[in-house]
Amino acid sequence: MKPVEKTEYQPIPVRQTLIEMKDISELMIDLAYSAALFNNRELAEEVMALERRVDNLVYILNMNLMLAARDKEDAESLAGVAKVGAMTNSISDAAADIAGIVLHGIGIHPIVREVFQRTEEHLARMVVAENSMLAGKAVSELDLAAEVGVDIIAIRRGIHWLIDPQKEMVMPEDVLVARGTASGLEKLAEAARGEVETLD
Amino acid sequence: MKPVEKTEYQPIPVRQTLIEMKDISELMIDLAYSAALFNNRELAEEVMALERRVDNLVYILNMNLMLAARDKEDAESLAGVAKVGAMTNSISDAAADIAGIVLHGIGIHPIVREVFQRTEEHLARMVVAENSMLAGKAVSELDLAAEVGVDIIAIRRGIHWLIDPQKEMVMPEDVLVARGTASGLEKLAEAARGEVETLD
Repeated sequence: MKPVEKTEYQPIPVRQTLIEMKDISELMIDLAYSAALFNNRELAEEVMALERRVDNLVYILNMNLMLAARDKEDAESLAGVAKVGAMTNSISDAAADIAGIVLHGIGIHPIVREVFQRTEEHLARMVVAENSMLAGKAVSELDLAAEVGVDIIAIRRGIHWLIDPQKEMVMPEDVLVARGTASGLEKLAEAARGEVETLD
Repeated sequence: MKPVEKTEYQPIPVRQTLIEMKDISELMIDLAYSAALFNNRELAEEVMALERRVDNLVYILNMNLMLAARDKEDAESLAGVAKVGAMTNSISDAAADIAGIVLHGIGIHPIVREVFQRTEEHLARMVVAENSMLAGKAVSELDLAAEVGVDIIAIRRGIHWLIDPQKEMVMPEDVLVARGTASGLEKLAEAARGEVETLD
């Protein structure tokens, strides 16, 4: 088990924290389904990394909520905000449970595969090589939806996650999470590994 | 508090139960967001009704899994199926927690509204009147997406939920859950109440 990141108070706006938690928890469900569908340990590990991030954010959210409440009216209306934070945490835990099936090597029963396949959205995870044609370009500039029928829905850079990173620049060693057709994802993976010069 | 429905063993295929649980839990999240966004008690009550349904299905799923396992290999591979059932139950509980904010009358903080609005899909709930033009027609036949820009994503008929009910016939007293534009939903609500003869 990896050491748990120490959680220190950070003055991050509640709004921003809650949006990040909601976005991450939704991404985690998609990632967990794909991890189970393809029995993919790498995707499952990403889910676990995100789960640690959400755990961390819950603490930060609750600290900032406590500091924000000045009277009982504040406390009442902020109690609902805390509940939404708890909800995203429950969803994140549920996704981590699914990823755990893969990591425990239990094997994915055909029924689970079938259930997840019904709402299947192909996701893949790829690491950007030093010499990749993607490196140094903004995600939006790559025009991936039109070129190869995929979207980069998240980038992990070290321990930081960038969700919906349209304006971000792709960097070597970035971990990309992309959604799209199987053939499009394969093309993007080749580009990430630096095996092709163009996406055509 | 409503009495909890007694859960008796029913020989429902595991596959069918799991699909129903997954579909319902996803619907519940959408309904809970809408309930919070519009501080709508009726939608929140529907979330609670669905939560009781999922609670019931978890028992039925686990009973059928126990009966399906004949040896330790079965037990291992079915343990993952049980985990997916538990996941849908966690998501269902999380949605019920959000609906609880509405039912407890805590009031929806502007931050929560903003966070839910970002992925807003307008949902509405409506009851079909005896003299509604919708009654007696199949959902697909109404061609609602083209006519008014809405989809009926679920129907509750008494205690039974029909998810993605394209081929179902709309009946008087049905509770429809529809997704779409605000104006389209208003038109559909008028039709459900029997106030208009056509959807034009």
